[in-house]
Amino acid sequence: MSPDLSGNPDPSGIEAFDFDLATAVTGEGPVFGASLDGRWNALFGTNGGFLLALATQAISKVMPFPDPIVVSGFFLRPGSAGPVAISTEVIRAGKTTSFGQASVLRDGKEVLRATAAFSDLEAAAARGGPVHEAGGMPDLPPPEHCAQVPPAALGATIAERFEYRPVTLPHWAAGSSPSSNPVYELWMRFADGREPDLVSLPLFVDATAPAVMEVGVVSTTIELTVHLRAKPAPGWLACRVATRHLSSGYHEEDFDIWDSTGTLVAQSRQLALIVG
Amino acid sequence: MSPDLSGNPDPSGIEAFDFDLATAVTGEGPVFGASLDGRWNALFGTNGGFLLALATQAISKVMPFPDPIVVSGFFLRPGSAGPVAISTEVIRAGKTTSFGQASVLRDGKEVLRATAAFSDLEAAAARGGPVHEAGGMPDLPPPEHCAQVPPAALGATIAERFEYRPVTLPHWAAGSSPSSNPVYELWMRFADGREPDLVSLPLFVDATAPAVMEVGVVSTTIELTVHLRAKPAPGWLACRVATRHLSSGYHEEDFDIWDSTGTLVAQSRQLALIVG
Repeated sequence: MSPDLSGNPDPSGIEAFDFDLATAVTGEGPVFGASLDGRWNALFGTNGGFLLALATQAISKVMPFPDPIVVSGFFLRPGSAGPVAISTEVIRAGKTTSFGQASVLRDGKEVLRATAAFSDLEAAAARGGPVHEAGGMPDLPPPEHCAQVPPAALGATIAERFEYRPVTLPHWAAGSSPSSNPVYELWMRFADGREPDLVSLPLFVDATAPAVMEVGVVSTTIELTVHLRAKPAPGWLACRVATRHLSSGYHEEDFDIWDSTGTLVAQSRQLALIVG
Repeated sequence: MSPDLSGNPDPSGIEAFDFDLATAVTGEGPVFGASLDGRWNALFGTNGGFLLALATQAISKVMPFPDPIVVSGFFLRPGSAGPVAISTEVIRAGKTTSFGQASVLRDGKEVLRATAAFSDLEAAAARGGPVHEAGGMPDLPPPEHCAQVPPAALGATIAERFEYRPVTLPHWAAGSSPSSNPVYELWMRFADGREPDLVSLPLFVDATAPAVMEVGVVSTTIELTVHLRAKPAPGWLACRVATRHLSSGYHEEDFDIWDSTGTLVAQSRQLALIVG
């Protein structure tokens, strides 16, 4: 059945959420179709994390295991609204881990090359084994006691798809000068009530304004790697975004996410190029 | 000219270092040849960082820019001594960034899929721009005041290719129990006097024992991403290896490297699977 792209609840009575509609892929594979609808745009075209989540979704269709555990995407060109083709490949289907790749093409030009490993996280958790947890979850007040970022503050349509509850407002939302401290700590969730899951985490880790804006610059992602460490529980996600090293026009951004039970669910890092 | 694999100085009078001999690729491309010689083995076959450096070397042959800035590798099977084929692809040659991919095949089976972005780091540095540096370089005593790891301590041949100078010996070298603190801080350099460069950094970031051994386990790499941030100056490299989160059989390992002038030259992270 084709997805209902009208934004209305589907005829089956199951509510259709924005993210599921936007990442629905068509076809039997290995080449899938999808449509970029302009509602997930960052400052320079389609948000990179959204494209990476879409590629992860497509790769999942050809993998023998249910759960992405790591995905890496290289951003080749800006994405834009319109139809895309997603060409997938099973690189290897191993006994505990399988590997796949996807190329996302817009107007025949590749905008993203993504590679992923899949496994079964519940089976892995059931096997038990040692645990080491050095912590690091941000110490956030309850979301209702945090600041509220106006969705249209930056003119990026993707900001309308989320609720952001930072401890303090970013300088660009507060109307102040850059803080020179490129760290944001905040709660996030989908604005339409969709709960987080593994395939949406590559989007979450790239769906805030870059922390480096607190140094007064903007950048574009070259590469983004996301480790998916556990299935997120329903509810708000606690997030820390931080850049430690900006030099020669490049910076990294680390984005870690804990779910509402305090479990680390995603660790990500991107390399980005300063563009203004 | 075929590389001289004997380990003797080459006939041109230029000293041939182990790493250069081992990562020499033959052929005109896009498919190159190389030989794994068993001298870069970790506990379970060829070291992953070595394979990633070899793939980066091969990709560099088909890139219009000189410097790898980020490389991500997915480890599909263990590598072993013998001939390999390295199939390369130019994904995109852009104006400031180019992207390439390599598959390393041993006995016709793919052991590594690596993707990389290349640019010109000196041109980028010359453009200047803002700098933010949150520090983090380990505060190490001079190498001659550090501990010395016996090369054969773990039975991994790769350990004979490096000099390691940690602040304190890993538990397995000291004959003590695991410390439960999966963090190593150390100096490193090639044992044969070769100076570090960009293409060797993907090897350095995977060439120590995993820090997670301090929790009493060993693991195998699934994916490794390395950001190359600056060309390293000659001399010792200051390194920090740390695992913060081990759960459900997986852990990340962060490996950051500063050169002898205190400049951050590599930031890396891998996802690894506990195997014993």
